[in-house]
Amino acid sequence: MDEKRISVAVIKRLPRYYRYLGDLLDNGQKRISSSELSKKMNVTASQIRQDLNKFGCFGQQGYGYNVELLHEEIGKILGLDKAYNIIIVGAGNLGQALANYGNFKKRGFNFVAMFDINPELIGREIHGVKVHDISSIGAYLSANEVDIAVLALPKQNAAKIADVLAENGIKGIWNFSHIDLHLPKQVTVENVHLTDSLMTLSYKLRK
Amino acid sequence: MDEKRISVAVIKRLPRYYRYLGDLLDNGQKRISSSELSKKMNVTASQIRQDLNKFGCFGQQGYGYNVELLHEEIGKILGLDKAYNIIIVGAGNLGQALANYGNFKKRGFNFVAMFDINPELIGREIHGVKVHDISSIGAYLSANEVDIAVLALPKQNAAKIADVLAENGIKGIWNFSHIDLHLPKQVTVENVHLTDSLMTLSYKLRK
Repeated sequence: MDEKRISVAVIKRLPRYYRYLGDLLDNGQKRISSSELSKKMNVTASQIRQDLNKFGCFGQQGYGYNVELLHEEIGKILGLDKAYNIIIVGAGNLGQALANYGNFKKRGFNFVAMFDINPELIGREIHGVKVHDISSIGAYLSANEVDIAVLALPKQNAAKIADVLAENGIKGIWNFSHIDLHLPKQVTVENVHLTDSLMTLSYKLRK
Repeated sequence: MDEKRISVAVIKRLPRYYRYLGDLLDNGQKRISSSELSKKMNVTASQIRQDLNKFGCFGQQGYGYNVELLHEEIGKILGLDKAYNIIIVGAGNLGQALANYGNFKKRGFNFVAMFDINPELIGREIHGVKVHDISSIGAYLSANEVDIAVLALPKQNAAKIADVLAENGIKGIWNFSHIDLHLPKQVTVENVHLTDSLMTLSYKLRK
């Protein structure tokens, strides 16, 4: 397959395919036609065929798609065939919620450490993840292999910490802090701006 | 202004404008040129002028934009000139994190009640918000005006609860449950699918 030709719009739809196929697997369904998947996902069947053909996943006439194979194939494209070590910076409610989210672990995302400035949290273990002093983060990253850092701390400190992470070789940042980060281009940032999302909802409600 | 002609792409950018203008306000900055805003936001100045003109916000030559007025105007468009009563269904870590998020309150989003099935949580007050028994949600919605419901509960129960919310007149749902909801079209749903977001990051890292 030639992934260069795959548009951002298709990429954005992949996690959703993966999620639906995972649900089918959990329910023991072995195969599915594009039209049945279409009804479930509220996407046209031709869209589904087009998207999946791009990744070399061709359904068989009269059989449809093999759910397990398709799930596995999309998982590979999404990079889920490897495991990721993740640290969480900010051990407040949000950081704790993320550390406790079973779905992530199931997909190979392993939370290996949390960091905070709060002395009451440092040294504690939260949902099996130890909270370290934020000042030790550079040393931790030198000694341990970490793929992704989650920023779940107030925006006042987020940019400075992001710079420290980038300097210490972190390649992926999942940013919940309410700020856009400006980092070297080898660092990939995925933003979850919750306030922006809530405002989008209030915009739609206002209409 | 004719909002019908405004594209989804422009709408999606509005919360970000609002956020940057809010930061400028907090820093006491009274006016800003499109080129200065362009540098901060990493968007072209012509894009900014085009976007803001659509909403009738014209910067003055040699002066730029009045930060406070522009912030207020975009706030109105986003529906932030009114307050919203919000309930949170699911008082686990994520629900608690949302209830405690100061930014929301500042924007007029008021969390008025939480609901859970866990007897250890029911009756408690978390960050000033009382947790009610989930079985009382219909009665609560009959007796109180609620604009938005947050779904922060496991996906197994999310669809059923969403139906109950829709039947009880909820117009907006902010959905953190890992499921796509199928609701009557008068109900607006804004999804935050965290696992999808994390998979998008792993996809980008894989490349």
